[in-house]
Amino acid sequence: MLQPVMHVLKQKYIILASGSPRRKELIENIGLQVKLCPSLFKEDLDPENFENFSEFVEETALQKVLEVDNRLKTEGAAPDVIIGADTMVTLDGKMFGKPISHEEAFDMLSKLSGRGHTVYTGVVVKSLDKTVKFTEKTDVYFGKLDDEQIRGYIATGEPMDKAGGYGIQGVGGTFVERVEGDYFTVVGLPLYRLCSILYDMFKEVK
Amino acid sequence: MLQPVMHVLKQKYIILASGSPRRKELIENIGLQVKLCPSLFKEDLDPENFENFSEFVEETALQKVLEVDNRLKTEGAAPDVIIGADTMVTLDGKMFGKPISHEEAFDMLSKLSGRGHTVYTGVVVKSLDKTVKFTEKTDVYFGKLDDEQIRGYIATGEPMDKAGGYGIQGVGGTFVERVEGDYFTVVGLPLYRLCSILYDMFKEVK
Repeated sequence: MLQPVMHVLKQKYIILASGSPRRKELIENIGLQVKLCPSLFKEDLDPENFENFSEFVEETALQKVLEVDNRLKTEGAAPDVIIGADTMVTLDGKMFGKPISHEEAFDMLSKLSGRGHTVYTGVVVKSLDKTVKFTEKTDVYFGKLDDEQIRGYIATGEPMDKAGGYGIQGVGGTFVERVEGDYFTVVGLPLYRLCSILYDMFKEVK
Repeated sequence: MLQPVMHVLKQKYIILASGSPRRKELIENIGLQVKLCPSLFKEDLDPENFENFSEFVEETALQKVLEVDNRLKTEGAAPDVIIGADTMVTLDGKMFGKPISHEEAFDMLSKLSGRGHTVYTGVVVKSLDKTVKFTEKTDVYFGKLDDEQIRGYIATGEPMDKAGGYGIQGVGGTFVERVEGDYFTVVGLPLYRLCSILYDMFKEVK
């Protein structure tokens, strides 16, 4: 979608305020050149202070962007665009972050087995003159997993650094019977809306 | 999902009867070791002879598998498992194969713009003692594209070897507002059902 503005985007210094190799791969797959700058924001917002999951992931994404923006400005390397994102898996009104132990991963995956859950990704795009925020949510339906399959998956090491304890773009993709929404929201960066925003930002700059 | 039977699968000689680098990548992402052997089947079945799209893609996948199976047996290198697949994009009762010109790609993408279509992938898994066939279908909803965006996309070269003129795992992913079904059906290999079949085939072999 970005091809008509790609010559403009290629001249911009674009930062992805994330350490996620999956987000970087997504961005690169669509031909965008970005520099990764993981945020040092602690991600310690209290969910109780937010009306809903959308506001929570958007605010976390915003804090990641602002931390990176301030740091780079201090260093005299202010970027033209900063993109930040935060992804959260939710089930029955509860948020599942990254599991901190194999036991917690087992518990999460057992709960996700044989039913649907919702993944939220909040995104912030900050250019020199404006900041745009949005959240996408996608429903993901897992097939029924037995304990042996869950334990075997945990043994691959894949679940430990991923919200909800699975990676849809890896071995975890074999658990997913269907999705409803933008698939890339589940990977960690909703491409359609992100690219729509970048296109609108730069289509007048020729 | 396959971890409990992976030690069995690793000892099997598994052929993917396809030349698609996307299918190979999907299979490798889930830890399966396969050898690619593109089928020489002409893919010239007449859609008029089939009741519906599912039967058409399943039969094409079957013919790919049988051609490869016969050829390898003749060469004395009979595999333990052969996996074949065929993917078709459909809109308003018509099938969209791979575009044969830029004009045809433009026509296809213009028709897909701003609405939903359905992707069918037929899969055949043939082991030494049985053959399993199935078809998965996934609905894909494109955002509205302008002519400049379509032309820019065609200029990337991505559309030309892909059913329907787009690749969802590449730049084409930015066109897709939402999917409903198995995302991997659109990439070319429905992972959930494929892995369920492989799991059932080999779970008794310990």
